[in-house]
Parts: sequence; structure tokens; C-alpha cells
Amino acid sequence: MLVVLVIHGPNLNLLGEREPEWYGRMSLDEVNKLIEEKARELSCRVEIKQSNHEGEIVDSIQEARGRAGGILINPAAFTHTSIAIRDALVASGLPAVEIHLSNVFGRDEFRHVSLTAPVCIGSLCGFGPHGYLLGLEALVHIIGREPGVT
Amino acid sequence: MLVVLVIHGPNLNLLGEREPEWYGRMSLDEVNKLIEEKARELSCRVEIKQSNHEGEIVDSIQEARGRAGGILINPAAFTHTSIAIRDALVASGLPAVEIHLSNVFGRDEFRHVSLTAPVCIGSLCGFGPHGYLLGLEALVHIIGREPGVT
Amino acid sequence: MLVVLVIHGPNLNLLGEREPEWYGRMSLDEVNKLIEEKARELSCRVEIKQSNHEGEIVDSIQEARGRAGGILINPAAFTHTSIAIRDALVASGLPAVEIHLSNVFGRDEFRHVSLTAPVCIGSLCGFGPHGYLLGLEALVHIIGREPGVT
Amino acid sequence: MLVVLVIHGPNLNLLGEREPEWYGRMSLDEVNKLIEEKARELSCRVEIKQSNHEGEIVDSIQEARGRAGGILINPAAFTHTSIAIRDALVASGLPAVEIHLSNVFGRDEFRHVSLTAPVCIGSLCGFGPHGYLLGLEALVHIIGREPGVT
Amino acid sequence: MLVVLVIHGPNLNLLGEREPEWYGRMSLDEVNKLIEEKARELSCRVEIKQSNHEGEIVDSIQEARGRAGGILINPAAFTHTSIAIRDALVASGLPAVEIHLSNVFGRDEFRHVSLTAPVCIGSLCGFGPHGYLLGLEALVHIIGREPGVT
Amino acid sequence: MLVVLVIHGPNLNLLGEREPEWYGRMSLDEVNKLIEEKARELSCRVEIKQSNHEGEIVDSIQEARGRAGGILINPAAFTHTSIAIRDALVASGLPAVEIHLSNVFGRDEFRHVSLTAPVCIGSLCGFGPHGYLLGLEALVHIIGREPGVT
Amino acid sequence: MLVVLVIHGPNLNLLGEREPEWYGRMSLDEVNKLIEEKARELSCRVEIKQSNHEGEIVDSIQEARGRAGGILINPAAFTHTSIAIRDALVASGLPAVEIHLSNVFGRDEFRHVSLTAPVCIGSLCGFGPHGYLLGLEALVHIIGREPGVT
Amino acid sequence: MLVVLVIHGPNLNLLGEREPEWYGRMSLDEVNKLIEEKARELSCRVEIKQSNHEGEIVDSIQEARGRAGGILINPAAFTHTSIAIRDALVASGLPAVEIHLSNVFGRDEFRHVSLTAPVCIGSLCGFGPHGYLLGLEALVHIIGREPGVT
Amino acid sequence: MLVVLVIHGPNLNLLGEREPEWYGRMSLDEVNKLIEEKARELSCRVEIKQSNHEGEIVDSIQEARGRAGGILINPAAFTHTSIAIRDALVASGLPAVEIHLSNVFGRDEFRHVSLTAPVCIGSLCGFGPHGYLLGLEALVHIIGREPGVT
Amino acid sequence: MLVVLVIHGPNLNLLGEREPEWYGRMSLDEVNKLIEEKARELSCRVEIKQSNHEGEIVDSIQEARGRAGGILINPAAFTHTSIAIRDALVASGLPAVEIHLSNVFGRDEFRHVSLTAPVCIGSLCGFGPHGYLLGLEALVHIIGREPGVT
Amino acid sequence: MLVVLVIHGPNLNLLGEREPEWYGRMSLDEVNKLIEEKARELSCRVEIKQSNHEGEIVDSIQEARGRAGGILINPAAFTHTSIAIRDALVASGLPAVEIHLSNVFGRDEFRHVSLTAPVCIGSLCGFGPHGYLLGLEALVHIIGREPGVT
Amino acid sequence: MLVVLVIHGPNLNLLGEREPEWYGRMSLDEVNKLIEEKARELSCRVEIKQSNHEGEIVDSIQEARGRAGGILINPAAFTHTSIAIRDALVASGLPAVEIHLSNVFGRDEFRHVSLTAPVCIGSLCGFGPHGYLLGLEALVHIIGREPGVT
Repeated sequence: MLVVLVIHGPNLNLLGEREPEWYGRMSLDEVNKLIEEKARELSCRVEIKQSNHEGEIVDSIQEARGRAGGILINPAAFTHTSIAIRDALVASGLPAVEIHLSNVFGRDEFRHVSLTAPVCIGSLCGFGPHGYLLGLEALVHIIGREPGVT
Repeated sequence: MLVVLVIHGPNLNLLGEREPEWYGRMSLDEVNKLIEEKARELSCRVEIKQSNHEGEIVDSIQEARGRAGGILINPAAFTHTSIAIRDALVASGLPAVEIHLSNVFGRDEFRHVSLTAPVCIGSLCGFGPHGYLLGLEALVHIIGREPGVT
Repeated sequence: MLVVLVIHGPNLNLLGEREPEWYGRMSLDEVNKLIEEKARELSCRVEIKQSNHEGEIVDSIQEARGRAGGILINPAAFTHTSIAIRDALVASGLPAVEIHLSNVFGRDEFRHVSLTAPVCIGSLCGFGPHGYLLGLEALVHIIGREPGVT
Repeated sequence: MLVVLVIHGPNLNLLGEREPEWYGRMSLDEVNKLIEEKARELSCRVEIKQSNHEGEIVDSIQEARGRAGGILINPAAFTHTSIAIRDALVASGLPAVEIHLSNVFGRDEFRHVSLTAPVCIGSLCGFGPHGYLLGLEALVHIIGREPGVT
Repeated sequence: MLVVLVIHGPNLNLLGEREPEWYGRMSLDEVNKLIEEKARELSCRVEIKQSNHEGEIVDSIQEARGRAGGILINPAAFTHTSIAIRDALVASGLPAVEIHLSNVFGRDEFRHVSLTAPVCIGSLCGFGPHGYLLGLEALVHIIGREPGVT
Repeated sequence: MLVVLVIHGPNLNLLGEREPEWYGRMSLDEVNKLIEEKARELSCRVEIKQSNHEGEIVDSIQEARGRAGGILINPAAFTHTSIAIRDALVASGLPAVEIHLSNVFGRDEFRHVSLTAPVCIGSLCGFGPHGYLLGLEALVHIIGREPGVT
Repeated sequence: MLVVLVIHGPNLNLLGEREPEWYGRMSLDEVNKLIEEKARELSCRVEIKQSNHEGEIVDSIQEARGRAGGILINPAAFTHTSIAIRDALVASGLPAVEIHLSNVFGRDEFRHVSLTAPVCIGSLCGFGPHGYLLGLEALVHIIGREPGVT
Repeated sequence: MLVVLVIHGPNLNLLGEREPEWYGRMSLDEVNKLIEEKARELSCRVEIKQSNHEGEIVDSIQEARGRAGGILINPAAFTHTSIAIRDALVASGLPAVEIHLSNVFGRDEFRHVSLTAPVCIGSLCGFGPHGYLLGLEALVHIIGREPGVT
Repeated sequence: MLVVLVIHGPNLNLLGEREPEWYGRMSLDEVNKLIEEKARELSCRVEIKQSNHEGEIVDSIQEARGRAGGILINPAAFTHTSIAIRDALVASGLPAVEIHLSNVFGRDEFRHVSLTAPVCIGSLCGFGPHGYLLGLEALVHIIGREPGVT
Repeated sequence: MLVVLVIHGPNLNLLGEREPEWYGRMSLDEVNKLIEEKARELSCRVEIKQSNHEGEIVDSIQEARGRAGGILINPAAFTHTSIAIRDALVASGLPAVEIHLSNVFGRDEFRHVSLTAPVCIGSLCGFGPHGYLLGLEALVHIIGREPGVT
Repeated sequence: MLVVLVIHGPNLNLLGEREPEWYGRMSLDEVNKLIEEKARELSCRVEIKQSNHEGEIVDSIQEARGRAGGILINPAAFTHTSIAIRDALVASGLPAVEIHLSNVFGRDEFRHVSLTAPVCIGSLCGFGPHGYLLGLEALVHIIGREPGVT
Repeated sequence: MLVVLVIHGPNLNLLGEREPEWYGRMSLDEVNKLIEEKARELSCRVEIKQSNHEGEIVDSIQEARGRAGGILINPAAFTHTSIAIRDALVASGLPAVEIHLSNVFGRDEFRHVSLTAPVCIGSLCGFGPHGYLLGLEALVHIIGREPGVT
């Protein structure tokens, strides 16, 4: 059974409490339940981690090698500052999908540049918690495609 | 019944024939069939247009006002050059979702900046034709949410 | 009798309906009536065109050569992206005045640069529909000046 | 009766003598007479000041508060260097119109950026002395509009 | 028999009348006659189009696929602004040569960057109408070379 | 009889051996023979020099004054770094044509800027050795035009 | 009783030993004693943390929510690189004051930009250990002000 | 007895009336009274000057040499534009502290750069009128430190 | 008899006391005596002014028109910030020479750009007080040259 | 006996498995054995640490003070993003040598800038695992040099 | 027997006399002796050249083709300005190692960019004369590796 | 007797013939005579060299060490491109003065930056051939000053 590593970056543990005008009012637990539900629907299993520590996220990505078949990642603030996570994603050799809850292109200029997006298969933003479900669907769809067919 | 305007920007009429390493091998007609199928599944109706003319895309967006409930747009090359389409999207007052077939962040630098994404609800890229289906789902989901709840 | 070509750029056909906080609540028809009234007052005749197509605006400017004595142009979004319109204005050999309804210098950074203003006689912005009347007055005044006297 | 403060920035006292290819051949006194005439026509009164001192212009703008209903300002060289005048215009709470005799967008690159235009209602350039008359008309028109209606 | 699509971009229909110090005094018809003559000499056939509309140029390039063996293009103003034409050239799969009448490197800074040149085989500028003949010769020479030999 | 100075810049003596994917497989001697043949066809005489020394190229250009009627130059690496060669070209007072074997606009960013092109009559790139023949033809054509007619 | 979280960023544990020309000769323990003394004087209680780990600082800020009334933070090197800490400060909803021991504006260019200062109430730098006492005083003063009064 | 020169830059004479959302509602007289009170508390004497003229501020700083022991300066708009004030501060040889009422780092980009801060001992911003009191305390503390001990 | 206006910009009244490592130990009075001596030697008369006020320098330059034959100016800090002085120099129509005591190119980056040098005949820097004498000599030499001979 | 701290930054634990085209096929354990061997040969002892956590690397550097005589560091991704590690290196007061396995100057632009190299004695890149041995040799050589002799 | 070309760029002939704080006190002859000794130790032979002429260095690199097996180059000032040397290195087809005596990353900003490093196998800096020995060792090690194994 | 090395950079051998609107009509021989005359007047001896080769200029500067007491250099085009000459000037340990015939600040943007000026004592430009005489006078004056007195 396909295992997908789901990573929530820094401050996402405060979901629902933090700046609801950008991030919505649903808590991370509620979001995770939706993700798990979607996973069941897509016949895969998710392992979900949240961390405020860049190093822990690098560790998690590394550990996913061999065990997981793909990565769904919302790197939050690390999107714009972490080459280490970028390098870990490449090193993992796993297909990854990047998601953001808010429309980062309509916010601060420094949020317009992603260090991680270029090494993911694809990315999406602006759809709130629903974005995780779309991202998971996209990822499972990509993994299911025959190799070499993009 | 919800109507969604689907816009394919310049050169997308060549889908399947043009740079398949970036855009895949499915033709635009085949993609459109998938979109229509997905629309039926989501209980909405799509109106699909393709144009190589910026002005025609502006016209289409303007005409969607009043008749459509949302816009799914792949502005292709115009993503990076058309303030007119950006202004039309804002003027339309309709929720829009931007999609790209390829992962624009892994390509030429001038493809990293989108003039239209900041005025859309959200955007996604890198998922090939499947991206239209995810984008349509996202858009219908957004329109279905109660007003004021983002 | 002096003929002045008046050009309204993309999305100006939605005047009054589109972002009234920037563009006011008067429709394009109402604005055009004011312009025609002002033209009568200034003893000239206006030919008014609106287009969402860059190419049509280039065509209109080219056709004005020989027939019109000046151009009053609100290039809207094309102000910041169209070298073709700039080249057409120069090629026309006609004195032109650029106007903008909103104060572009208090808006998005990409609206601060005009490709067309440097090849016009002068420009004005921020005065809403009244700006067209001031611009027409300025243009007629310039045309009426003896040649070589700036 | 509406009072309008008219400010001429540095070196405008040399009008008619200085670089006539940019600024024309009319002296400042002659221009001022035209402004006063136009003011009578518009049923308002102008107070005209010229200064080569940034501080004096800041003082004048501050003193206009309470006594004047609007400001017509040609900040000349200070357009591109004075945050103090910008702050004074905002602090005055008065509607202001910025004018330039020459078409600044067709001159040195450092003249393309205005620190003061973003805090004015609108601006115009390139119409020579006639620009003051258009600017005054625009300002009086703006002040005459009912509050809240842009 | 080899067919070459020759595209003249915006404002080139005014050739001979427009800024002769940059573009010379020969009309587009006269230039086209020279091109046809040269084509005969090179034993190929030219199809010549001029348009002020970016979309029409994209359409023409797309339609050339299958029918023509190469493209000779003077994108004029679109050189610096059209990613859509760039993408169409790539999508066409045809060898293309870019030409400019004037020496673009000795003009405005914004004319120094070409979006289309990187996807052409080669480019030339500064030789006036004669440049079309050189470009056609270059293109026919390239097409005549055996495949894989650059 | 018209004499044309042909200058090959640094590393062009390795032509045919160096990076054939950019520069082709023909040796400099073979290219020079083609140039001399073309010169005979155009009824002019060429003097051909190759140097890896910027100073020698400056010397050659200076010495061409009075003796030659034009310069055909491929400055190679010096295109992007030598103001001395630019100044020498201007000082020579001779019409010059710049050529590059490869399409410089499709290579490293630092190869996109030419210090010498703005002071040449025109330039071309991307046509391999054939480019020298086209450049010579262009140069002879320019020199043959009556003075003052561009 | 008001609780203030005091955060010392990376390398501040070496205070007194590290680059005394920038940071002075007082140890972190000595500085902390001064802070606690000042806190007593201001009738508040401080909780002091030092960490070289960005993630721990994010954790500490998050945990302060509900328990503390304000944050006094010297983010040290993270000032210029951590969007995660910036986001945590915003997410905490607590008033924060940023301090630096040295005058960062007189040092390396990369130390001139602060990612965290824009989301703090205010900031100060250059006063050595005394800066903590001034910052604490400022913070307590701000918290004591009635809401809505800036 | 220690004398401190306190300088208020342009438009600060309007304090309390001007943009209270940035600058608060206290008048400059009220702020000055607080400063004088604080000075008494710190056993020093303040000389307070406000000017909208850059030159007067330069004069005041120069005159402080010999008579005053330190400078507390809010250069307001001149912070970002006056090298003359920067040079005067250096020339005075006196320790200076820069203060700003608002958090300049959360405002317009051009307010993020200070020409004067690098030549002051330290700076603070965002604390409203209270900032003057903190700045004075910091300055007196610095002056009181033994020489050579930073 | 030729009159030369000599202008010393802001903070030069402190010469000899201010940063002697950059500006030397001679007082402004001593420098002025050397200038007057040199003037006698060159058979001209100098009028010397020093001001810390940009506006006064503009006034002085304007007043020199008609009375003086040239301007020797050390704009000091205003070199890098004053477009008003630049405009005044142009408006005066007088040949001007810019001098700096220190080698500005070996100091802060913001001192590398001069707004006034491009409108002067020439400039010199780095020679300390002796630079005034060289500058005066250069200016008198230029004025003495026959018109049209540069 | 000289102790050298050897630090491997993020993702280097995957050596041999990760992007072998950049990093080679030797595992970190194998590399470490080579380093230890080389240390024995150079009569010093190495302490080797690998971490994906910036904070742990800062901690390690700090702890090396007093115990180690030098640092050999491959900061990997942190090279380009960590001011905290830079500050720790300076604070440690120890000579450091920076190494990279791949030639960073031939890779992504963001890998061309090193925050840590300027505070090291020297750096090397592009030599694969052998680089550690060269770096260790360089470091031991530097430490062995008499003080003050560079 | 392996031959290595060793190139010393401009001003390195002054080694030991020139800026010893950056370059040390050993003369070039002494350094060359160390290099030759190291070469013997590594069982290879070095050919050493120094030149202040860019063209001579290009010539030397070209001549090394066929005769030498690798290049050790300290391009000195040409590192930052010579595309010709970069192109020659590529054209030579030989593995090259770049070395610098001083730590270029801790010096002037313009010394931070190397045009030649990206086309070398690797580079090192900051180790003084010892760097040549390390570089030679690295180069010989690389050449000794089996082909295709990086 | 003091010996001064006078260096004329590339293309200055064409003085009088080349672009007289920038460089005047006097030949280099005539200029050199004036320089020698001035040298006699200043009781020093000049050695004058002109070269179009950067390497020769570096050689000349190196050879001046020990023999000459100062350098007067017009690096012409090399001003903006030669770090080698900059390094040679520093390595020579001799005081140098940079001169330019034309006012470089009023010409192409790339002529505004000098790599050599920061390492000279001072520089001057815009005074034509007379500039050499002023520069020589300045240099002799500097050399004559007692050491340590700037």
C-alpha cells in the first residue's frame, strides 16, 4: 500500500488560531482528519508530521526514502529560506508536491520565491485546507502513472 | 446550474504536438473531454475557449460576468506579460483559479513571475492535464463555500 | 475642422462597473458624452474607439495618420506592456496626450512605468473622467500653438 | 472663497531664461498672471510662492492648513528627492495636484520617479505653462466634488 | 519546393513612411518584391504576412507547421514583449531566423533584449531591407544542410 | 579595390577542434578560404587576422584606417569585455559588422551583452561559418550605398 | 502579574567572550541579572531563554501565547534569515520589541535588513546590554497603554 | 552639567495633528515637556530645536560642538535623504542617538534605509513619544560610561 | 576682469577640525586665502561662499548669472543628493568645475555617484586644498579658450 | 595533540546515495575513514559530526572552543543561508577551512554565494571526498605556521 | 610522464614584494621551487609560466593541448574579467584547477565572482603559496582517477 | 631628480584624429610636448608611454617601481575593465593620479565606474589635454608633501 509522507512546516501547528484571514479557522487536527479520510478514499496511507525545526523536516524527508512513495509538503516559512529542505527533497528521490494554504503570490514579496517548488513535481496554493486534499490526489495520480510518462 | 468559463491561452491548441516533454502527449480535445466529464461529476457546466489572442481572452472574461460563476484559466505565455488579462479578471468580479501544465518554477526565469496569480483565488502547476481537473474541483469547492468564509 | 482620435484601452468598456474605488461610477458612454460635449466647446471633432486588443489600437493609431490632428489615449493595461503602441504613436507623427483615470503612482509598482508616456507630448492621471476633458483641452491647445514653439 | 496655494519649486524663478527647449520662453511673472486669470475664471483665489529652499516649501504647505482648500505644486527638482515635502503634503490633509512643465518621462532616468505624486490626487506633465491652468481646473473640480465621491 | 513563411511584425506596414532615420525609405511592398526576387534566386517560395496583432502572428506560425520549411521573422516591437510568439516558434518545430531593420543594440535599452532570438537558429540586425535577403539566404542555407550538422 | 579587414578574436584559431556543438567542425583555414572566395565574388579584397590579444586587435583596427574600407569582426570573448576594441572601432571611423558563429542569445547570460555591437552598423549570429559570408556581403552592400542613405 | 518572554538568539550564550568590540564584555548571566532587576523595578516577571536553534525559538514564542503579555527578542543572526520566527511572532498575537546589542546599521550590509522588525512594535540597537533594559521598559510601557491608543 | 541637543526634523512641529495613526496624538509641546522632565530626572539639560530646513539642522549640530555632550535626533524625512546631516553628525564628534516615532520598518520601502543611523551610537523606533525618553536615557547612559568602554 | 564664484558646500566651514584623515588640517579661511592668492596670480577675482543650505547654494548660483564668468564648486554632501543644484548649474549657463577634497571613489559607495559632475565641464578629487587651486586654474583656462573649441 | 573538529552539514549523511553525479559514490562512513587516516598521517586527531540541524552545528562549533585547534567544515546547504554558523565560526576564534564536494560555481546561482567563506581562512570545492583530505592538510599547515605569519 | 601547465596571472611576478598582508612574503621563484618539488613527489613534471598579458595566457593554455595533462591556474586579476581565458580553458579540453593565494571572498566585492571557476574541476583560495601544492595534488589525483568516475 | 611615469592607455595614440568632440584636436605628440614642458617647469622628468595592450601597461607600472616617484595615468578604456592595472598600481606602491580627457560622467553609463580611481591619490576629468598638466602638478605637489601629511 502506497505511503505518503505529509509534512506541515513551522507555525502550522497553530492552524485555526493564527491569522485566520490568511489561513482559515480549521485546526491542524481537523485538517489532518480530512487528509486521512482522503487517503483512505485514494487507497493510500499517510504519515503526518509537523515541525517548527528545519532539521527535523530534513530528517523526516530522509527517513521517508524506501518507506514512502511520495511527499506532500507545506514548507510554510521554510519555502523561502531552506536550501537544506530542497536538497533533502532531491536526495530522497521521491516525487513531491508543494502546497500552501494562502495565495502566496498575493502576499509579501519575499513569499513569491520558492526554493522548494522547482524540485517538486508540482505545487498549488490558495485553496486553504482543501489544498492538501487536492495535493494528495495529484500526488497519488502522478505516482500511479506509468514511469516515463509525464 | 453553475457555469465555469475555462480558458486555454496561446499555443495550447497544439497540445500533444508541442514540446511533449513539458506538456504531455494528450491533445486539447482529449483534455477538454476530461474537463467536461469532471464538470458533470461536479454538477456544473463548462464553457471552454482557446485563443492565441490576448484581446479575445479579455473579451471572454468580460462576457463571463453575470453568466458564469467562476473562471478556470491557463493563461500560458500571457501569464507573464498580460496586465490586461489581470485587470479583466479583477473587473469580472469572479473567483478564478490559475493552472499551468508544466512546473513553471523549474523552467526559464521569466516564467517564474505571474501577473495573474495574485488576483486569482489560487493557482497550481506541474500536474499536466490532470491539473485542469484539480483546478475545477478547487474552484467549485470555493464557489460552494459560504460567502465570507475563506 | 480638427479631428482628435480618442482611444480607450482594455477593460475601459466596463467603466462604472469595474473597481469603482479606482475608476469611479460613470459608464464609458457617459464619459464619451462629456468628451463630445467638450470637443464641441473646443470646436473640434472626436472619433472615439475602445478596444481590448492591442493590435486594434495599433491599427487605429495608424489609420489616424492624415485624417486626425492629434490623439488622446488612455492605454490602460497596455501602458506598461505595449511597445507596439509606443511605436505606432511615434510612427503616426501625431501629437498625443496620455491620460489615466486613477493615480497610477499610488498603485502597484508595475503601473509606475509607462512605455507610451515618453513618446507623448504630455500625460496626466488621477482626475477620473474629468481627466479626458483636461487632456482634450491640453491637446487642442498644443495643436493650436504655432509650430516650433513648445 | 476657495483659496489655492500654488507652489513653484527650485529654479522656476528663472522660467523663460532657463533651458527654453524644456521649459518654454514665458517668464514666471507671465505664468503667474495666467494662473491668476484662470483663478478668477474659476472663482477662487491663488496664493503663489516660489522657493529654492526645500524647508520653505515645507513651511508653506504647513501654513496652508486651515487657510487653503487645495495645493497646486510644481516641486521641480524636489519631486525626485524630497520626502519632507511628501510628508508635508500628507500632513496638510489638503488635496494636491502635481504639475511639471516638461514631459519628465522623456528626460533623465532619475526624473522618472516622483516621491510626491503618490500622495497627490493626480499629476500632469508636458504641457508647459498651460499645465498650471489645467492643474488648477482639475484641483478646483476635485474640491467641488461632494466628499466620498471619487 | 521549399516554402518559407516571412512575418513582418507591428508597424512594419508603415515602412518607408515611419522614422526613416531608423527604418529607411523603402515601402513594405518594395521590400517584399526584393524578398520574392531573392526567393526565386534561391529556388524557394515565400509566403509573406504582416500583422499588428500578436495573436495573428501566433496563428500564422502555427499554421506554417507542415506546410513551410522555415520562418523568417521580424517581430518588431513584439521581439521584446511576446512570450506567446516565442512559444509558437518552439511549438512549430521549424528553423527560424530573426531579423531587425535597425541596429537594436544602439537604441533604447528595452530593445536590447529579445525574447524570440534564443529560440531562433540565428538573428541579424542593422542592415535595413537588405537584412531580409541575408536572412532568407541564411535560412535556406541552414535548411539545406544535412540534419544533425550544425 | 575595396579592402575589408576581417578580425577573428580569441580562441577562434582552434575552430573545428573547440566545442564543435557551438562552433562547428570547419577549421579556421577552411573558413578563411570561404571568406576569400566570397570576397572575390564581391570584387573586394580581405585582410584576415586572428589574435588572442586584445591589444593586437586594437592595433589592427587602428592600422586599418586609411587602408581599408570596412571591418568584419568576430570579437569572440572580447565582445563582452572590451571597451578598448569598441573605442578603436569608433576611432577608426570605418563601417563595421559584428558576427558570431553561435547564437549567443541562447547561451550564458554574460554572452547576451555586446559592448561592440552598438558601434557597428549591424550584427548577426548563429549561422556558423556561413555567417562570415553573409556579414561580408552585408558590409560590402553598406559600403556601396551612397553616403547618407541608410 | 505581567510576564515577559525574553529571547536571546544564536551565539548570545557566548556574550562577553565573543567579539567584545561589537558585543561588550558582560556575560549573558550578568546581562540576565540586570534584566531581572529591571523587571522587578517595572513590577513584571521575565522568562529568559537562549537558543542557537531557530525551531526552539519558534516553539518558545508559540508557548508564550496565553501565558506571557509580551516578548523582548534579540534574534541575533536569525534577524536576517528567519521568516519562521517572523511568522511565529505574528501568530503569537503578542506585542514584541526587537533589540540588538551592536549598531547593525554600521556593520555588514546583510545585517541591515530585518525580517522580524516589521512585525514588532518597535526596535532598538547599538546600546549594548543596556538595550535590553530600555527594550523591557518600552515593552512594559506599550502593554500598559490602553488598547487602541498608539 | 551635561547638555543634550534634541533635534526634531521636518513636519514634527505638526505632531498630534499629522497622521495620528503613525505619530500619535500628543503635540510637540507636550512631548518636549516630557523630554525636559526626563532630562531633570537624569540630571542633564536639553536644548530642543525643530526645523523643516535641512541646513538649519546641520547648523544646529555644528553649533553643538563644544557646548553639548550628545545629540538626540529624530531626523524624520531627512533620515533617508540627507548626507549633509550625516556628515555634520560625524563632524560634530558627539555621540548621537537616532529615534523615530513610528516603526519605520513596517512602512514604505524608502523609509527602511537610514543615512544617519550608521554614524550614530544606536537607534530606536516604534515607541511613539516614549521613544524620546528611552533615547535620552540611552544617550546619557552612553556618555556616562568611561571612555573606550563600549 | 573675470569673476569666479567659489562655492563650499555643507560642513566645509569645519575644515581642519572635521575628520582630518579625509579633509586635512587646514581651516577654510586658510584655504580661501590660498584661493584668493591663486586668483590674483591668474588675474581673476573670486567671490567665495559657504553654506550648509542647499537653497542658498541654488540662490548663489542663480545670482552669479551675468556677474560671474564661471563657477568652482565643492558641493560636498549635496553632490550625491541635489538635483536642484544640478538644475541651477545648467540654468546658470556658466562653465563649472566640481572639486572634492578627498578621493570620493575610495570612500562609501553612496559617494561614488555625482548628480552635479555630468553638468560641469570637468571635476577633480583627492588633492586636498590644493584641488581648489587646480580647479580654479582649469576653469580659468577653459574660459580663456575661444568659444566652440573644447 | 592537535584536535580538529570536522563538520558535515545537512544531507551529507546520504553521501553515496544522493545525486552521485554531484557528490560521488563513496558513503560518509568511507569518507570519514579517509579523513581519520589522513589525520593520523598529519599527527592530529579529528572529531567528526554530521547534522541536518543548523542549531546543532552552531552548538558544535561553540563547544570546540578551548578543546579544538581548528575547524574543517562543509556547511552544505547552510553555506548559503546561515549567518548563525558564520557568527559561531567568528565567535569560536578558531581557524576554519570550508570545503564543498562539488564545484558550487558550476551549479545553481544561489550556490555561488557563501556566507561562511569570508570568515574562514580559506576554502576549496570541486574535489569530491579528496577535498576533505586537502582541507585537513591545509588547516594543519595553517595552524602549524607561526602566529602573525600569513 | 604527466605534464602539468602551471600559470601565474598578472602581478604574481611581484610575489613577496606586493601587499604581503594579502599575498605573503615568499617570492615567485621560491614558490615555483616548492611547486617543482611537489611535482617530483607526485611523479609529474610542471611547466611554469607567468604573464601580465591575457593574450599570452590564452596562448599558453592553447599550446598545452596535446602536450599537458592538466592545468593549475592562478588567473589573479583576470579571474574576474577574462572570458577569453575561460573559453581557452574549455577549448583546451584539459582538467584545470583554479587557485588564489588570498581568501578572495573576504576582499573587494568584485573579487567574489570568478569567470573561470565554473569551467575548472575545482578551486581553492586563502592558503597562500601552500595552495599551489594542494591544487597540484588535487589535479594529479583527479587525472589519476579512471575516466567517467567523478 | 623626480621621475614621473606618464601612461596613455588604448586608442590615445589617435588623439586629435579620434572623436574630436570628446577628445579635442591636439595630437598625442603635441600633448606630450606640453607635458614635458610642464615637467621642466616643475623640475621633474617624465617618461611617457602609450599602449593599446593592458599587459604592457601592467609591465610599465611594475618597472616604474624603484625608478619613478609617481605615476600619471590615463587608462582610457581600461579604466572600466582592468583589475590587473588596478592591482599593478597598488603593487607599485607609488602615488598615482588618474586623468581623463573627456568628462566621463556625462558619457555612457559604463564609463561612470572606475576600477583604478579608488587606488589612486586622486583623479580629474573633462579638461582635455590641459588635464595632464594639472594632474602632473597635483602629483608633484603630493610627492613633495612631507610623509604622513595628507
